[in-house]
Parts: sequence; C-alpha cells; structure tokens
Amino acid sequence: MGRWEPNARGRLEQAAIELYVERGYEQTTVAEIAKRAGLTERTFFRHFADKREVLFWGSGTLRDHLVNAVGAAPDSAAPIEVIAGAVESVGVLFDERRESARQRQAVIAANAELRERELIKLASLSAALADALRRRGVPDPAASLAAEAGIAVFKIAFERWISGTGEPDLARLVRESFDELKAMAAGS
Amino acid sequence: MGRWEPNARGRLEQAAIELYVERGYEQTTVAEIAKRAGLTERTFFRHFADKREVLFWGSGTLRDHLVNAVGAAPDSAAPIEVIAGAVESVGVLFDERRESARQRQAVIAANAELRERELIKLASLSAALADALRRRGVPDPAASLAAEAGIAVFKIAFERWISGTGEPDLARLVRESFDELKAMAAGS
Repeated sequence: MGRWEPNARGRLEQAAIELYVERGYEQTTVAEIAKRAGLTERTFFRHFADKREVLFWGSGTLRDHLVNAVGAAPDSAAPIEVIAGAVESVGVLFDERRESARQRQAVIAANAELRERELIKLASLSAALADALRRRGVPDPAASLAAEAGIAVFKIAFERWISGTGEPDLARLVRESFDELKAMAAGS
Repeated sequence: MGRWEPNARGRLEQAAIELYVERGYEQTTVAEIAKRAGLTERTFFRHFADKREVLFWGSGTLRDHLVNAVGAAPDSAAPIEVIAGAVESVGVLFDERRESARQRQAVIAANAELRERELIKLASLSAALADALRRRGVPDPAASLAAEAGIAVFKIAFERWISGTGEPDLARLVRESFDELKAMAAGS
C-alpha cells in the first residue's frame, strides 16, 4: 500500500462514474474503466472487487462515522438529538463533492440492481444506528424508531442537496429536515 | 374466474409458506407447492407468476388501501395525522393473520433476495404515500418526510406485532409507535 494508492483509487472512481454516465452502468466494463484512468485492470481489482463496488465502497466509512458520532454524544442527549447530531455530522464527508454525488445518484437511479443495493445500504445504516443507540441504553422500539427517522431525514436531505444548486450545505439541509420532522410530529 | 378461485389461491399460499418454512424457500419447487395444495402446476401459474409472488402479491392491496385512506382523510388533517390514520387503518388487513404473517416474515428474513424484495416493497409504499400527500397539496419535503416516517412506524409496529404473543392488535401498535415518534421528536 504505497502513497500513490489514494490517487489510483480516485482516478479509477472518477473514470468509472464518467463512463457509467456516458454509456450506462451495464455497458461499461472494468477494462474500459482501467483504460480511461490510465491504469491496468489488475490495479482496478486491487482497489475494488467489481464495478459495483466503485459506487458503494464509501458505505463502511459512512457507517463508522455515524456509529462513532452516536457513541461520542453527551450522555444527557435525547435519542433523537443524538441521531440528528450524528446525521448532521456526516455532511463533512460530502462537502465539495456535490457534483460527483449527483452523478453517482443518477447512475443508481437508472439501474434497478443499483437502486436495490442503495436501499440495502440505507437499511444497514439504520440498523447500525439503532445498535449504537441500544449500546447507549436506549430501549426498543425507541432505538429503532429514532434510527429509522434519522435515515429517512438523511435520504430526503441528501436528495434536496444533490438536486439543488445554491449554497446550502448538506449538514444544514439535514438540520432543516429534522426541524421539519419535529414540527410535523408536533402536529403542525 | 369461478367461485372456487379464492380457495385455490388460499390453499396454494398456505402450502407454499408451509414448504418454505419446512424446507427453505430456495429448495421448494412450484411442483411441490401444487402437490401439497392438491392442485396442478397449471393452477399455480394461473394465480402466481412464480414462487416469490406468493409472498408479495398482497403489496398491491396494501398500497391501494394506504393511498385510498390518505385520499379519504379530512381536508383539515395535518400530514402526519393523515399518514398515521392511513397506516393504522391497514391493521384490519392483517387481523387474525398474525401466525401466517410471522411465518412469512421468517421466510423472508432467511433469504437475502427476499429481504431485498421486502425493502423495495416498503420503499414503493413510501413513494405511493408521498404521492398521495402531494395530491392533497402537501409540498415537499414535508410529503416525503411524513411518508418515510409512516413507513418506518409501520415497519417497527409490524415487527413488534409479529414477535408478540399477547392481545395488542396491529392498529394499536401502529398508534403507539406514532405516539412514541411524536414524543421523541418533541425531544423527550
């Protein structure tokens, strides 16, 4: 694992997304991705198990970030606040990356298998958040409910973020969506 | 479509679920399901496209029920109350069917492909609820947020219902979970 690795990975990722947008995900081969990135197929497979993983390798990072943020919240915080803070804090993982997030999402929206994979990813993030709350002593169903609400807010804020062009950053949209959920739950 | 059809469908469904529980979903063939039900394969395929559809044919009924309930809510009802009422009202579709719902859920939990299909079903119910709210003039992101919250509550209440043995009916567990979401969103 030399110092060049992040560059190779980044180049492969960029080349893959470009090709998925241009030609469609199904029509793109690993050989073409490697060629576009100026690298070999062997290098591709050192970084990714297959062409799908290029779109989902970040899930583990996202999950770890969320789980760590839940664990680090003050003991006094209410479950929904713990979740809101954790989801808001993932905004920094995406800052300056709106264009590539938008492209990734367009590729996923165009393919049924990828849409399923994305749903599985969100369900597993929700399960990880619920587990992290239970470790804080939050009982069920409160833990599951707060986690599901958090992922629903994340999904909706993310869609607003990638479809927008103005300044609001992801963290701010997450906070706004949580506030909207609260206002709505209060019956307004 | 003669009067015997509901019986044939019901017998096939029961035979299929029994076999999925006994032998596993992957190991069960349509021929075995038909035989167990005392019917022909041809009759099976008059009712279901494949062995997976036995587990998911109710999705359309569920979606229609939810969408109709949203459309029928009083104009004055707040979005979250419209959704809570709609989700609560599906309880009647499941009453007296807890044992078969439990078996179906166990079959799904044991198979990755079926778990994915279930996630897709829930995502499409959420999309249908959000559409129904938009038709009532509820703007986004409120419509999506209320719909996602409703499906999250349904999922959690359903899990509580099938894992329980006591008296609470599904509608009551849905109402309790909505109240819990409200209390949680209020920060308690």
